[in-house]
Amino acid sequence: MRFTAADSRFMSRALQLAARGLFTTSPNPRVGCVLVKDDRIVGEGWHERAGTPHAEIHALRAAGEAARGATAYVTLEPCSHHGRTPPCAEALIDAGVSRVVAAMTDPNPLVAGGGISMLTLAGIAAEVGLMEAEARALNPGFVSRMTRRRPWVRLKTASTLDGKTALANGASQWITGEAARADVQRLRARACAILTGSGTVLADDPRMNVRDFDIGRAPLRVVVDSTLRTPASAAILPALVACRDASPATRTALEAAGAEVIEMPGVDGRVDLAALLALLAQRGVNEVHVEAGAALNGALLAAGLVDEWVAYLAPLAVGDDARGLFAHAPLATLAEAARFRLQDLRQIGGDLRLTLLPA
Amino acid sequence: MRFTAADSRFMSRALQLAARGLFTTSPNPRVGCVLVKDDRIVGEGWHERAGTPHAEIHALRAAGEAARGATAYVTLEPCSHHGRTPPCAEALIDAGVSRVVAAMTDPNPLVAGGGISMLTLAGIAAEVGLMEAEARALNPGFVSRMTRRRPWVRLKTASTLDGKTALANGASQWITGEAARADVQRLRARACAILTGSGTVLADDPRMNVRDFDIGRAPLRVVVDSTLRTPASAAILPALVACRDASPATRTALEAAGAEVIEMPGVDGRVDLAALLALLAQRGVNEVHVEAGAALNGALLAAGLVDEWVAYLAPLAVGDDARGLFAHAPLATLAEAARFRLQDLRQIGGDLRLTLLPA
Repeated sequence: MRFTAADSRFMSRALQLAARGLFTTSPNPRVGCVLVKDDRIVGEGWHERAGTPHAEIHALRAAGEAARGATAYVTLEPCSHHGRTPPCAEALIDAGVSRVVAAMTDPNPLVAGGGISMLTLAGIAAEVGLMEAEARALNPGFVSRMTRRRPWVRLKTASTLDGKTALANGASQWITGEAARADVQRLRARACAILTGSGTVLADDPRMNVRDFDIGRAPLRVVVDSTLRTPASAAILPALVACRDASPATRTALEAAGAEVIEMPGVDGRVDLAALLALLAQRGVNEVHVEAGAALNGALLAAGLVDEWVAYLAPLAVGDDARGLFAHAPLATLAEAARFRLQDLRQIGGDLRLTLLPA
Repeated sequence: MRFTAADSRFMSRALQLAARGLFTTSPNPRVGCVLVKDDRIVGEGWHERAGTPHAEIHALRAAGEAARGATAYVTLEPCSHHGRTPPCAEALIDAGVSRVVAAMTDPNPLVAGGGISMLTLAGIAAEVGLMEAEARALNPGFVSRMTRRRPWVRLKTASTLDGKTALANGASQWITGEAARADVQRLRARACAILTGSGTVLADDPRMNVRDFDIGRAPLRVVVDSTLRTPASAAILPALVACRDASPATRTALEAAGAEVIEMPGVDGRVDLAALLALLAQRGVNEVHVEAGAALNGALLAAGLVDEWVAYLAPLAVGDDARGLFAHAPLATLAEAARFRLQDLRQIGGDLRLTLLPA
């Protein structure tokens, strides 16, 4: 056991602090820091927003002279490079901390370990790996973008117990209750981008914005629209509209309405979703929140691009002719089924929320 | 507060004892009895099987002379009529008990209260209503049969999270895991009858028997088969086969194979399910366990005949072309949806089991 119970307690606190940035740090990771001397917290900090100081800097400022000889608990390896702010490893060294405990290394393979090395070379005891799973869970998108060059894709669905999202005539207001719909706003608020399909845009004309939470930023809205059907009057605009081929007139009209129209490579005439996700990663998108119809849901699922499925289930049944969750090519055997494991389950109002990860 | 904490404790014990008859008392109710003197249990009993002594008699035998002056806790009003066994109210009077606490009155409106009256007239303090909800929950079928003249209909489904019971090609082995399938055997074992449709018989040729539990009786198997398609070789036989019109030849063949073929009144050319349930109630069926396909499931749901829905959900998704849960006429508005409330939720192996009651 490298780490003591006290270490775990202080790292828990750092994780709590990091979570305060859940809605705001995009495209940066959520990070928290606690400075401890003589078993007492002498400074705390968390990263709030890109371009503002990192968690370590806030904690050092709070601690002042007390930082000398302290232990720094930080949920992510301190940075060693000059970005928009000077490197935190340097700041910790300058402040005279004697020990640094990081929950995880920087997931960026190009820089991973750099901060720890810098600290070790300066004679500071630097250790990594305390509550690493919890730290990674705070930043699935940042980790995914750094290690896989694609965002973390969180698919949200709201269906009846018999797997329907709307009646055959399209009626869908409301399948789930008010509490579940409010809960969805939390998912939108933490996302860097919100992804939907042109079918949903044409059918429901949603805004796909964040209500209820004042997060000081607006997630990028993205429409998968292979044949560029999104009207210039769509409430979702401004948005990035990903299509296969854009006629100049349609493109011009959409751009005038605030859209960024991007022609993407295709798969079977449809937008290549993996390519679109790669593009979003390049733009700093960590977490993509998907709220779409059966076509896009099914395409993402069939392509193995769903990293997390948040399924709201309403205790209703509406019959087989109603609209389903996933449209994709028929499966030949159950071995081909998309399999998940339950990560979390709770009752939200009268509905259930299942959080599932690929099995 | 008529009842004390000690009263509740002893009634809890009586309910526990009653539950031991879960699989065996059919068509009788599950009943438990505890005799208490000076705050000590002096006799216990539960009803095991129709034609054998009732719970009170077992408890009185166990108590012997100690029954004199005791309090009897019984989960159902003691009977006052001569059936296959003499009336329990009489036995309690003869044994000299001084007080009787019953969880609920006999749900049969023709006899309700008769046992209590008999006790009261004999000078015994008789009270009803302690833990009544728990007692009723032990015998939903018996209560339903006595008060509504129809059995309690428990619908079991096993589906993916996107509401599918099989692939389009029929593959369904296995959607849910071994633990969930074993759990279904408990539901079958407590039922008086197991109901399915001819579509399931033709597609899967199931036996629909009780495995894993030696319950000393075989639930009546019932096939809804409007056009009498069940083959004489069907593994489900012997069974009651409910049809609209039976050709003499088909009927004779099925009867030779052990079927009881019954022509039922029809609704839109299909067997009238309410009439079938009434018939089953007349035959002493308390709980009907339904394991069927989308056609029968949908017909029961649309007719408002589902009293309890036990939905096993496997964490899979298989796509919209796969087979759904409920086939019935399209709904025009969500107000027409079948609404449920969650009564119980648990993880069974890797699957979820939801127990739902109509909302």
